[in-house]
Amino acid sequence: MSKAITPKAQDYSKWYNDIVVEADMADHSAVRGCMVIKPHGYAIWEKMQQTLDKMFKDTGHVNAYFPLFIPKSFFTKEASHVEGFAKECAVVTHYRLKNDGKGNIVVDETAKLEEELIVRPTSETIIWNTYKGWIQSYRDLPILVNQWANVVRWEMRTRFFLRTAEFLWQEGHTAHATADEAIKETEQMLNVYADFVENWMAVPVIKGLKSPNERFAGAIETYCIEGLMQDGKALQCGTSHFLGQNFAKAFDVKFATKEGGLDYVWATSWGMSTRLMGALIMSHSDDNGLVIPPKLAPTQVVIVPIYKGEEGLKKVSETALQIVAQLKAKGISVKYDDRDSQRPGFKFAEHELKGTPVRLAIGERDLANGTVEIARRDNLTKETVSVNGIADHIEKLLNDIQKNLFDKALKRTRESTHKADSYDELKKILDEKGGFVSAHWDGTPETEEKIKEETKATIRCIPLNNKMEDGKCIYSGKPSKQRVLFARAY
Amino acid sequence: MSKAITPKAQDYSKWYNDIVVEADMADHSAVRGCMVIKPHGYAIWEKMQQTLDKMFKDTGHVNAYFPLFIPKSFFTKEASHVEGFAKECAVVTHYRLKNDGKGNIVVDETAKLEEELIVRPTSETIIWNTYKGWIQSYRDLPILVNQWANVVRWEMRTRFFLRTAEFLWQEGHTAHATADEAIKETEQMLNVYADFVENWMAVPVIKGLKSPNERFAGAIETYCIEGLMQDGKALQCGTSHFLGQNFAKAFDVKFATKEGGLDYVWATSWGMSTRLMGALIMSHSDDNGLVIPPKLAPTQVVIVPIYKGEEGLKKVSETALQIVAQLKAKGISVKYDDRDSQRPGFKFAEHELKGTPVRLAIGERDLANGTVEIARRDNLTKETVSVNGIADHIEKLLNDIQKNLFDKALKRTRESTHKADSYDELKKILDEKGGFVSAHWDGTPETEEKIKEETKATIRCIPLNNKMEDGKCIYSGKPSKQRVLFARAY
Repeated sequence: MSKAITPKAQDYSKWYNDIVVEADMADHSAVRGCMVIKPHGYAIWEKMQQTLDKMFKDTGHVNAYFPLFIPKSFFTKEASHVEGFAKECAVVTHYRLKNDGKGNIVVDETAKLEEELIVRPTSETIIWNTYKGWIQSYRDLPILVNQWANVVRWEMRTRFFLRTAEFLWQEGHTAHATADEAIKETEQMLNVYADFVENWMAVPVIKGLKSPNERFAGAIETYCIEGLMQDGKALQCGTSHFLGQNFAKAFDVKFATKEGGLDYVWATSWGMSTRLMGALIMSHSDDNGLVIPPKLAPTQVVIVPIYKGEEGLKKVSETALQIVAQLKAKGISVKYDDRDSQRPGFKFAEHELKGTPVRLAIGERDLANGTVEIARRDNLTKETVSVNGIADHIEKLLNDIQKNLFDKALKRTRESTHKADSYDELKKILDEKGGFVSAHWDGTPETEEKIKEETKATIRCIPLNNKMEDGKCIYSGKPSKQRVLFARAY
Repeated sequence: MSKAITPKAQDYSKWYNDIVVEADMADHSAVRGCMVIKPHGYAIWEKMQQTLDKMFKDTGHVNAYFPLFIPKSFFTKEASHVEGFAKECAVVTHYRLKNDGKGNIVVDETAKLEEELIVRPTSETIIWNTYKGWIQSYRDLPILVNQWANVVRWEMRTRFFLRTAEFLWQEGHTAHATADEAIKETEQMLNVYADFVENWMAVPVIKGLKSPNERFAGAIETYCIEGLMQDGKALQCGTSHFLGQNFAKAFDVKFATKEGGLDYVWATSWGMSTRLMGALIMSHSDDNGLVIPPKLAPTQVVIVPIYKGEEGLKKVSETALQIVAQLKAKGISVKYDDRDSQRPGFKFAEHELKGTPVRLAIGERDLANGTVEIARRDNLTKETVSVNGIADHIEKLLNDIQKNLFDKALKRTRESTHKADSYDELKKILDEKGGFVSAHWDGTPETEEKIKEETKATIRCIPLNNKMEDGKCIYSGKPSKQRVLFARAY
């Protein structure tokens, strides 16, 4: 156990914060609610970005960039969107500062904007206002655009990655000629998201639909993927929205159909954010620090030499650098940590804290035996293996670790998914075990609201693969056709 | 010539705007001074980013992310920085909107920030405030961090890419134990910039130092690279600043030296932005549209089939797809434009307008001859070549085009660089030919200011490779040791 990390069992929330800070993922900033993403955290985010970006391009999308600022009036154009987003926003009212002559910098009141600008909390409005100029005919469709950007949603109570005023994300905004095509796109992106979260982040997710209460403001249908963290709380990992013709109507975006008519354009939007960093940390990490799935680790393998004197280092380095070359040839990212300023024990602890998946230690005795010591970060086991064929061994090991992390998380998620057939049972499970609770619900927002008020649990989703089953709502006793997943959530 | 593009000779400024809009690089937005970067423009920017990012990493830098907002008071901490940057800024004063009960969304006056936040125009202050917590000892140095971000500098008169309120950029911010190391870093990054602009963008640049008037606000020394556009105006392509201990002193960032003392940390910062897109357009493009150097072209080769009927397309496609595969195997990006909805002439014009470096046309007669027609975008020449060895031929061609674009721009820059030995001569050259003018200057800000007022030309730089030469200032007649480069600039 790392002394720097509060044990998870003692204080989960403090454990999480300790990992973020001690593993050099992020830092507080001087601006309330905004964080600094430190190089180690940012390197993981970059790997996520690269992977997702490739997945988006492989499915035919291109990137673009839209303004940071949105005129205030744009938010009023889509009735339900305004309720959801035109609230806790950063509002730009002036465009100049001046020296007041007493050595103070003050806002220049003569430089007041005619219309306030909102720092984008999401970009549907500015983008659909732009699409109006891009779309005339069915030949201009589909538009398959993604944007990587920062967004701001003012938050009073913040947590690293999970809830910050400013965060980084991608937002896809597509335009289609038919509802059917837009729904297919919405579903496709949900599948891309699930693929990424499960196969790169090693976090198992449930795919589902949001209940009306939890739907994106302005959407007809919100699809989501939900993961379960180690403390039994759920975390929404990504959402994909079928927006119908709502934004096209709000911004008057019509197109000439193939059949010679005129129709409003169909829309989707979908997003994933630096929140995922929180999911990554809370799914796999332990009391020793961060655990990163190999596919997203900035450094997959670290090699630590154990030696006495310069001559000793020279000998060990020869073998170490050969291994480095072999690993690089396989596309494995490897760091040879030959800093002379730190002892091996310090380095071991540091790489453990920062989550490097595989650590190799090579001492002078190992050289004689033709072996190295390999330590796995995921289960903290060690083994001594031959230098011959080491690269193949490590390649397989990285795959094993990736798989093991997913399997462990899947087992945990399954064991933390329960059925409740009464309201008391739901409350008991939430209080005693946490996790997902599968229960019947009458489908009304009122019931959902009551349950949320009384238990702090929300409907995370109506699973896509749900089996239909007659039952009674655990709250109202009214008839229900299927169970939904409740959980307390981040 | 494209009908969509105003000829350069007729109206240079309109020519530039036409290319931006017609080649789908960018679009106006609903927000004054902010532009939309369209997919084609953004794809070029992405290639620039990827190339630069690799160059930064190869020189030991890592990425991080700092807040978008900067507390107003931070700007007052560094005396000269405040003069330069705390002026035309976007100022956030409130953090909530509300419904006024009459259906209007208004700023909630109860949600007023205690201290206004400035949307970053550059991040020295917030970063050095953060570095204070990261640096205690010489062991924590150097810090070699880069950030990719959006920044805002309020501008009333804007031009696509060249001058917009919001733009995208990277900003490097490094911290060092010695002045010497910081200066080496400043120079290293200038060289990285010059390498990128010359060898990727194919734009020749002059490396130099800025005069005190043109120095970055808060810098001890500003290094820059200056390019010359086709209209004879200069464009600053990148700057690298040696900041001395100014920001360390402003934010009280000290470190324990190796020798047991305590000293302020030495700093650099360096940046390049979407302005470069303007330089790219204005260096190479012609009256037919955009010209992109192959190394930055999102699509390097387009193949257009010429056929009659489905059967004809099928035959042509067979050969075309073989060529696609051969080019891809060489890492050449290629698009097979087999859209049935458009005729070849339309496709030719479109790819010409958008700057695709190489166009292949394959018709049924070509199939019989075993040839294809190749058109170069840079010099608009065509040749018919054998399908055998086509991939090697195109690989070489792309290199030739890259080189030709640079050579052409270099020749133009050289021919547009003049010497002036009197003030009248300077004015005459500026008015009649434009370009760089090499002339003696007495080294005073007053003279520089006067010349700027009277001619609109500024000192672009004091070239790094300048030869020392006794002379007299063309304006004041005072003695001068070297010539500096004047030009009218973007």
